[in-house]
Amino acid sequence: MKKQTGNPSEPGPQGSENVVWHEGQVSRDDRRAKLGAVGATVWMTGLSGSGKSTIASALEQALIERGVFAYRLDGDNVRHGLNANLGFNAGDREENIRRIGEVAKLFADAGVVAITSFISPYRADRERVRALHADAGLGFLEVFVDTPIEVCESRDPKGLYKKARAGEIRGFTGIDDPYEAPASPEVTLPTAELTIERSVERCLAAIERVRGQ
Amino acid sequence: MKKQTGNPSEPGPQGSENVVWHEGQVSRDDRRAKLGAVGATVWMTGLSGSGKSTIASALEQALIERGVFAYRLDGDNVRHGLNANLGFNAGDREENIRRIGEVAKLFADAGVVAITSFISPYRADRERVRALHADAGLGFLEVFVDTPIEVCESRDPKGLYKKARAGEIRGFTGIDDPYEAPASPEVTLPTAELTIERSVERCLAAIERVRGQ
Repeated sequence: MKKQTGNPSEPGPQGSENVVWHEGQVSRDDRRAKLGAVGATVWMTGLSGSGKSTIASALEQALIERGVFAYRLDGDNVRHGLNANLGFNAGDREENIRRIGEVAKLFADAGVVAITSFISPYRADRERVRALHADAGLGFLEVFVDTPIEVCESRDPKGLYKKARAGEIRGFTGIDDPYEAPASPEVTLPTAELTIERSVERCLAAIERVRGQ
Repeated sequence: MKKQTGNPSEPGPQGSENVVWHEGQVSRDDRRAKLGAVGATVWMTGLSGSGKSTIASALEQALIERGVFAYRLDGDNVRHGLNANLGFNAGDREENIRRIGEVAKLFADAGVVAITSFISPYRADRERVRALHADAGLGFLEVFVDTPIEVCESRDPKGLYKKARAGEIRGFTGIDDPYEAPASPEVTLPTAELTIERSVERCLAAIERVRGQ
C-alpha cells in the first residue's frame, strides 16, 4: 500500500507537485518571459573626474525606478573585492579590465543591465570585452564620457591630478599614461555641455534599443 | 531670453523632467521596493557526481518560474571565462573559490539569488565566502549535497573517478585529495534517498527564510 502521508519534514512524492521542473538549462528566452529580463552591459569609459561614476549611479537609479534590474560595477565594489589582489602595473591593469568584462558578461547573461564605471583607458582591453559580449550574443554599449582633461583637472574630486602633476602618482591616465578614446562608441556624453539628466536619457535610449533586440 | 525648444537630439532642460534622480546610491531597500529583489547566495558543495549541477539547475528554474531573479555560477560559465587563467594547483584552487565567492556576493548585492555549483572541498575556503557575505549583511546558505562516494563513483558521469583510480588524474577530491564536509550547513541533501524535486523544495524553503529577513 502506498504511503499517503509522512513526516512533514520528509513528505512523500505527493509533496513535489508544486515544483515545476524540466530537464535543461534556463534560457535567455525563459528569463525574458518569466522575469521580463534582458541583460546588457553598459561600459562607461573616460578620464578620472570625467563624471563616469555620477552618471553610472544616476543611470542605475533611473533603470531601477523603471523596474529594470541593473547593477553597477565600480572601484568600490570590485577593486576592494574580486580584484583586491591586483596592483597597477600593466599586466594587472589588463587583468583588472578582463575580470570586470567577464563579470559584466555574467550579469548580462543573468538578465541584468550591468553598468561598469572604470577609466579603462586602453582600446584593446575594451575591444576584448566587446568581442566577449558579441560572441555570447549579449548587448554591449560603449559609453564615452567625453570630458576635456582641463575640466576633469579643474574638478579633481580626489586631488589625484594634483598629485600626478607633482609626480607623486606615476602612470596617471591623461598625464603620463595615454587615454585612448573610443573610435566608435554607441553613446558619447560631452559632460561639459550636457546635464546628468540628459546624459542618463541618452543612455536609457541606447539601452532600450539594445534590449529590444 | 530662455531657449524653449532646440535640436531634438539635444533638447533643453525641459526634456529632463521624466528622469527621476536624486543624489546617492541605490540601496538594498530600493531594490526590494522597486524590483521585489532580495539577493542571497546558495552555495552548493559536494563531491564530483554528487548531483550539485542537476539540483542547481532545477533550483534556478524553480526560482525563475516563481519570478525570482536567480543565476547559476558553475564550471561552464566561470572556469572558461573569469577563471580561465587559473589551473588546479593549491593556490589556484583557492583563488578559484575566492573569485566565485566575490562574484556571488556581487550578484547577491544586486538582488539576485546566486547559486554556485562547485566541489569546493575545503572548509576554510567556504568559511571565507560565508564571512564575506556576513560582513556585507547578505544571506548565505551552504547546501551540502551529501552523496556517498560509492554512489558518486557508480554514477561517474564524466568518467573522472575511473581516471582518478587509474592514476590518470592526481589530486582528485575523494580519491587522493580530501573532501571536508560542512560542519553545519544550512541545508543537507542526502541525494541517495531524496528526489531532485524534494531537494529543490528544501532549498526553496531555506531561501524563503533567508530572503524574508
